[in-house]
Amino acid sequence: MTKLVRFSVSMEEKLVAAFDRRTRKRGYATRSEAIRDALRAQLVRQEWEEGEEVAGVITLLYKHSHPGLSECLTEIQHHALLQVISTTHIHLDRENCLEFVAVRGKAERVRKLADGLISLKGVKHGELAATSVGKRLL
Amino acid sequence: MTKLVRFSVSMEEKLVAAFDRRTRKRGYATRSEAIRDALRAQLVRQEWEEGEEVAGVITLLYKHSHPGLSECLTEIQHHALLQVISTTHIHLDRENCLEFVAVRGKAERVRKLADGLISLKGVKHGELAATSVGKRLL
Amino acid sequence: MTKLVRFSVSMEEKLVAAFDRRTRKRGYATRSEAIRDALRAQLVRQEWEEGEEVAGVITLLYKHSHPGLSECLTEIQHHALLQVISTTHIHLDRENCLEFVAVRGKAERVRKLADGLISLKGVKHGELAATSVGKRLL
Amino acid sequence: MTKLVRFSVSMEEKLVAAFDRRTRKRGYATRSEAIRDALRAQLVRQEWEEGEEVAGVITLLYKHSHPGLSECLTEIQHHALLQVISTTHIHLDRENCLEFVAVRGKAERVRKLADGLISLKGVKHGELAATSVGKRLL
Repeated sequence: MTKLVRFSVSMEEKLVAAFDRRTRKRGYATRSEAIRDALRAQLVRQEWEEGEEVAGVITLLYKHSHPGLSECLTEIQHHALLQVISTTHIHLDRENCLEFVAVRGKAERVRKLADGLISLKGVKHGELAATSVGKRLL
Repeated sequence: MTKLVRFSVSMEEKLVAAFDRRTRKRGYATRSEAIRDALRAQLVRQEWEEGEEVAGVITLLYKHSHPGLSECLTEIQHHALLQVISTTHIHLDRENCLEFVAVRGKAERVRKLADGLISLKGVKHGELAATSVGKRLL
Repeated sequence: MTKLVRFSVSMEEKLVAAFDRRTRKRGYATRSEAIRDALRAQLVRQEWEEGEEVAGVITLLYKHSHPGLSECLTEIQHHALLQVISTTHIHLDRENCLEFVAVRGKAERVRKLADGLISLKGVKHGELAATSVGKRLL
Repeated sequence: MTKLVRFSVSMEEKLVAAFDRRTRKRGYATRSEAIRDALRAQLVRQEWEEGEEVAGVITLLYKHSHPGLSECLTEIQHHALLQVISTTHIHLDRENCLEFVAVRGKAERVRKLADGLISLKGVKHGELAATSVGKRLL
């Protein structure tokens, strides 16, 4: 069981108002929950900056008809067995593929793997959605 | 077959140098491919801003022991059948779960679904990785 | 709310004993639950035989280095957009791939798709795990 | 590179004819490929019988509204971290869920995990699609 503390924060009125608008728009039940999320987002960023064990998903948009591309994507992933958990392939239409590579590992290795995949010729759009393995996030 | 054009761009030397360092670091084979990726990233952003049909993945980090949370996540997703394609669940450890919800649909609906899931109490970290269905991206 | 009925069944003693051993071994809480599962399994089979809308997963084991195979698998799946929901790729080792193709549709189309994928040269093992979309199963 | 051998088999004419009909119906290019598949299917079965390291997918059909069920499914999977790779959840309709649990490990542990999940009250249909990790299958 985690002990809860309560403390006050001073802030410009306008900043609070802007944040409250966002909080409501995003559907948060309370301002506190929205603030906790903002703090945790910073902690996740820190885990990546400090090279901790992290998790994430690499999104890849490409045409499967691009010569040699899908084989190359598979090849790279099979050489990163320690980082790749599983890959989900969505068949958008006859041509376009969307792949989600679930990854976990040291931040630097994961980022390098993402760069290697996204920079391939034929990958139209790619991104690394960075998150945490959750151990240090309450 | 897509016709290729070749044209020149004028730019500050320092900007080119900085971009070239990034290009090499990310593993791109050529500067042109890195520039194409930068342009396509802007087009993806535009699809989201203009409310087009888009695709993406919602990442959710949470503890499955949080009372009622996993049922609530499932419930919301089952009420968004048109947007949700499939969900991948990674069991990080005894407590922590990482879920990747593959989504597709009108930008506004997808973003609202993401907000609704991420803002739930008990979701420690969440993000919407925004990409495209690829139809208008070469 | 579904109304429950209670009725009796006559059966050879030995058959009951054998089924009870299986029930315990499989971890069922009660004999009734194990019997309900046996009946539902028959109903799922019937949905497939009668050509209903069904669901399932096609498992495919192959080496990604087999020339042209992964492209061919992708190509076939992209021509069956109505049946294929999403595909999960597990990287077993440097060479071996395990793919799970989640499918849904008319039984005959799904089976034909499964046959087409499994019979490809280079697919070492494949199977269609047949289940139901659940509408008619209580 | 694997050396190929060629040898002859004697068989009842009718058995060959029946197998050839199946071979054509399933879309195999040659009788040899269909026979290789039949042999590999036996070897996969043997890996499971002899308790080798195997792989597979557990399919689970259930209603997410069944009280406590989805939490129980998640709980069991999080206690089998060594066997569970990832889980894909398909939202069939407002009520019905289809889950594919990708598994890998000693045959006995995997089978026990499958039994534990499938026998839960509320799981309408479940199956273990058994395959191999591919190391010993050519």
